[in-house]
Amino acid sequence: MELLKERIRKDGKIGAGNILKVDCFLNHQIDAKLLKAIGEEFYRLYKDCGVNKILTIEASGIAIGCMTALAFDCPLVFAKKSKSLNIAGDVYTCKATSYTHKNEYEMTVSKEFLKPGDRVLIVDDFLAMGNALVGLKKIVEDSGAELVGAGIVIEKAFQEGGDMLRKKGFRIESLARVISMSPEEGVQFID
Amino acid sequence: MELLKERIRKDGKIGAGNILKVDCFLNHQIDAKLLKAIGEEFYRLYKDCGVNKILTIEASGIAIGCMTALAFDCPLVFAKKSKSLNIAGDVYTCKATSYTHKNEYEMTVSKEFLKPGDRVLIVDDFLAMGNALVGLKKIVEDSGAELVGAGIVIEKAFQEGGDMLRKKGFRIESLARVISMSPEEGVQFID
Repeated sequence: MELLKERIRKDGKIGAGNILKVDCFLNHQIDAKLLKAIGEEFYRLYKDCGVNKILTIEASGIAIGCMTALAFDCPLVFAKKSKSLNIAGDVYTCKATSYTHKNEYEMTVSKEFLKPGDRVLIVDDFLAMGNALVGLKKIVEDSGAELVGAGIVIEKAFQEGGDMLRKKGFRIESLARVISMSPEEGVQFID
Repeated sequence: MELLKERIRKDGKIGAGNILKVDCFLNHQIDAKLLKAIGEEFYRLYKDCGVNKILTIEASGIAIGCMTALAFDCPLVFAKKSKSLNIAGDVYTCKATSYTHKNEYEMTVSKEFLKPGDRVLIVDDFLAMGNALVGLKKIVEDSGAELVGAGIVIEKAFQEGGDMLRKKGFRIESLARVISMSPEEGVQFID
């Protein structure tokens, strides 16, 4: 998605430890118009797959998920990272590790919102090692719903998550695939 | 907002401790179309106020904020609840207490995204005791930006937050004001 790649080139900041900071349009300040275009692009890619539910994980996935759900005219469900008093006992859970935050967390989805017969598209902001995606995939499988694929905004294609999951037959569409980045050379993409 | 009140009457669940569960369209599963209408309603109410930034807090505020930002054609900034490796040192912070989760947390906004000259509309899913709103208000004031007002999806008007803040001259527009609720009588609204 050229519009997105241009934006990453222009506003992305490269930090220590292979961190690509896109705080000013994706993770902290959000460009709603760009996210609407991203949601529409996921729709273009998956419109023939009978998707009836979008699944993501809080917090950065929510805005992307919401715009994708709008494009598909279906509900968004977001996995929670901490147990809430508002969630009843009947939940799917999976542990995952955050590459950015260097911690382990539990993702939780109420059984009420994922059922056999659902056709689920997972969306998320980043794909690096694939930990969040593996967790969300497991939750979809546990629910008996059908996993259609994943829509990723930025894939760090120099890390193994994407290839590892594609080899297992998991369809992943990433709108910007970063192959290398450095403060000197900026961000390089592959198709 | 009649569409919202109807939805609360139909799908809201009343839990122990004055908890109104709207998990199936606002807090866990999200009805993106309804949220788009909510964003447009906030725009109708505040369109003459020169708003150039929407501010909310993760996680439940993000979807609402994103749709509101789309309606205003301006960026959304969401306060983070935990310190992230991705946030640089230059931040505004404020402590707040969660009514739902019964814990204290710190909200954080990067100084990069709130500046003097900004005209800020705060949006959030719930207003009860007003703790989150007071914290976000303080962050806006600390930044030197102008606070235009707040847009709340559901106000628990039987708790003191809304009245307390309005008495201080804070403009708050709530789309559904719950005056009482019980499993027997359901949810009652006031205008």
